[in-house]
Amino acid sequence: MVEHKEDEEDELAPFRGRFLIADPGLVYMDGNSLGRLPRESAVRARELVERKWGEGLIGSWNADWLDLPQRVGGKIARVIGAGADEVIVADSTSVNLFKLVVAALRSQPGRTRVVTDDLNFPSDLYVLQSALEGMGGSYHLEVVHSPDGLTVPLDLLERAVDDHTALVALSHTTFKSAYTYDLDRVTELAHRRGALMLWDLSHSAGAMPISLGAAGVDLAVGCTYKYLSGGPGAPAFLYVRRDLQKKLRNPIGGWFGQADPFAFDLEYRPAAGIQGFVTGTPPILSLALIEPGVELVVEAGLDRIRAKSVRQTETLIALYDSVLGPLGFGLRSPRDPSRRGSHVSLGHPEGLRITRALIDHRRVVPDFRLPENIRLGVCPLYTTFAEIRAAVDALRTVVTQRLFEEYPSERSGVT
Amino acid sequence: MVEHKEDEEDELAPFRGRFLIADPGLVYMDGNSLGRLPRESAVRARELVERKWGEGLIGSWNADWLDLPQRVGGKIARVIGAGADEVIVADSTSVNLFKLVVAALRSQPGRTRVVTDDLNFPSDLYVLQSALEGMGGSYHLEVVHSPDGLTVPLDLLERAVDDHTALVALSHTTFKSAYTYDLDRVTELAHRRGALMLWDLSHSAGAMPISLGAAGVDLAVGCTYKYLSGGPGAPAFLYVRRDLQKKLRNPIGGWFGQADPFAFDLEYRPAAGIQGFVTGTPPILSLALIEPGVELVVEAGLDRIRAKSVRQTETLIALYDSVLGPLGFGLRSPRDPSRRGSHVSLGHPEGLRITRALIDHRRVVPDFRLPENIRLGVCPLYTTFAEIRAAVDALRTVVTQRLFEEYPSERSGVT
Repeated sequence: MVEHKEDEEDELAPFRGRFLIADPGLVYMDGNSLGRLPRESAVRARELVERKWGEGLIGSWNADWLDLPQRVGGKIARVIGAGADEVIVADSTSVNLFKLVVAALRSQPGRTRVVTDDLNFPSDLYVLQSALEGMGGSYHLEVVHSPDGLTVPLDLLERAVDDHTALVALSHTTFKSAYTYDLDRVTELAHRRGALMLWDLSHSAGAMPISLGAAGVDLAVGCTYKYLSGGPGAPAFLYVRRDLQKKLRNPIGGWFGQADPFAFDLEYRPAAGIQGFVTGTPPILSLALIEPGVELVVEAGLDRIRAKSVRQTETLIALYDSVLGPLGFGLRSPRDPSRRGSHVSLGHPEGLRITRALIDHRRVVPDFRLPENIRLGVCPLYTTFAEIRAAVDALRTVVTQRLFEEYPSERSGVT
Repeated sequence: MVEHKEDEEDELAPFRGRFLIADPGLVYMDGNSLGRLPRESAVRARELVERKWGEGLIGSWNADWLDLPQRVGGKIARVIGAGADEVIVADSTSVNLFKLVVAALRSQPGRTRVVTDDLNFPSDLYVLQSALEGMGGSYHLEVVHSPDGLTVPLDLLERAVDDHTALVALSHTTFKSAYTYDLDRVTELAHRRGALMLWDLSHSAGAMPISLGAAGVDLAVGCTYKYLSGGPGAPAFLYVRRDLQKKLRNPIGGWFGQADPFAFDLEYRPAAGIQGFVTGTPPILSLALIEPGVELVVEAGLDRIRAKSVRQTETLIALYDSVLGPLGFGLRSPRDPSRRGSHVSLGHPEGLRITRALIDHRRVVPDFRLPENIRLGVCPLYTTFAEIRAAVDALRTVVTQRLFEEYPSERSGVT
């Protein structure tokens, strides 16, 4: 790849060396889906498996693991502007979302409406549907429809929230277009009608500054394996604002959320504070390896990460305008950088085959989302400007030389 | 440690070499809580982190990880006498239990009672309480009381199950005394009254032959980090009998249990079969490392494992009778080997301090469960007869020389 002046001047450039770059010829534009491996995580994985599990055996629970959900949670708290006692890591994003939604609904008797939108990650909608189904017949899920499939004007959202709304649950950055809500304004909008506000931060945590505390956000969840580079399927975090922790009750009691688990009482008595929102024993190997990636984000600083992210997505969009637009691509992300997360979606009727050709033929890895979105993620800790230019060049070549034509158009596996 | 003839004659002895035994002087009697590290798991951990995550990146999802819950589930199926299409691995034991209990209750309208016992793992009781709380006011949890704190006579259980019972939920082997239910008879007893039968196999899977299919068991869950040696907090399995999979619906819908997750439909449509009981993205590192331990159990064979387990717990009890009983210990496990799992609980008023002295002073590792139970687990794949004799010798020394007196009697951490 050609070296670029922007990379030479990039003060975050040294962070790339903190990740394993096994193959410098591979242009990885999918850190928004699975973040790269921090070198430190490989070191810790060996220590964790061989020394702590293999040699330390049960003793490692006391020495290291019992407080791991809180310790990792406390580090993530710094990334999302929360207190260390407001965030904990356990379970998947979906299970955490289920727990918080049910807890929220039960804390708001008389309010029977939940508001979300159709840009939300579908899995979040499944969880909302499941949670409401469990609450009985009188609950209603209001799904605000995005008029352009890219964004949701706040007045539409405002009209959907009323005095019967128990909860507004949205993705902060939406998975397809990267549309990013104004977290402060939407939180305020929900609170104005007495509703609780829940944010799914999966696509924004680690990619931009977030201030849950300052915005007065009630609840949040988010995954750790995208911009936080926590590893495949690493457990998710959940946040409950300090003063709500007493009011809300975890609907899936388990011994890791029990006040004194080793007393083995027969009655569920939730632990005080955020610990009460954990359920069963967390997957230690996957959980412990979240730390190095989070530490890199904290070390780099979210203002610098965001500044580079915006520069990189702006570069991508400028190249779209000059190179890809004329070739039949469409921009499927907002132009306003303040409303855009850290990936850019490009639409093309041959999106799936183009994605396949990019990966196979040009060694550029984006991902594909139906119906025609090629997502190009920038992860400022390791994505270079040279990679962005190489990715656009590859897109151009694949389309102009019609290299995609040799690839099948049927979906399979992760596409 | 002195070599023993029983070890020389033990045909499972070679399996000990398949686990990391970093310190041969450490007598590890806690495989019933956290199983040892299979050597193969250390190899796979490196490959998984460094090659599959680090180099394979997102491509490893398609190549390896998407079907991992089913692949590992299919292997565990062989250990519990189920079909490969009836078992899946995801989430913690508690979350899996919650899902199956809620699904079971919703499938049995008109039946509002759940029967369990007070020997069940307390976390299971918390989950049952949580699930019933979510079902509304008319549900009742009937907790059968063990008359001796060790066992539950089946006639007590029989009297508790009636035509309003939706579900009987029990631990197959109970965590404290190792009392092991007659799985066939209890399942039959539940079915006679039209109730569904759910077994928690956490303390029996991998330690004895189990035939869920032959017994007609409806539902089961179990953890993978005890006798299956899956690693700390490794995700749990769940089993749903084939013909029930259509009737029961996962109450926490998520995209890993969605019929076609990458279609990103907005409506939750559960995948057919056992896959529909998964919720969110599973923790891949913790999940993948379950395989080697399960493979060792399958290779050794459950009949041989059980035969050695019984010989070893019988040896322990014989030594209790001759050596420890006279020193003030009490036997807190059933004498009938057919009703006993793979650990032996010894009671002593100074149980906690004795446990501490054993670990610290004699390098023998049992665990302690209130009020006074010292649990000695035998894991036939690596526990030697020499270790059992060394453990009993250490217990004798700690008590006769009153070595426990220098240790505190206050609980902390995992005790």
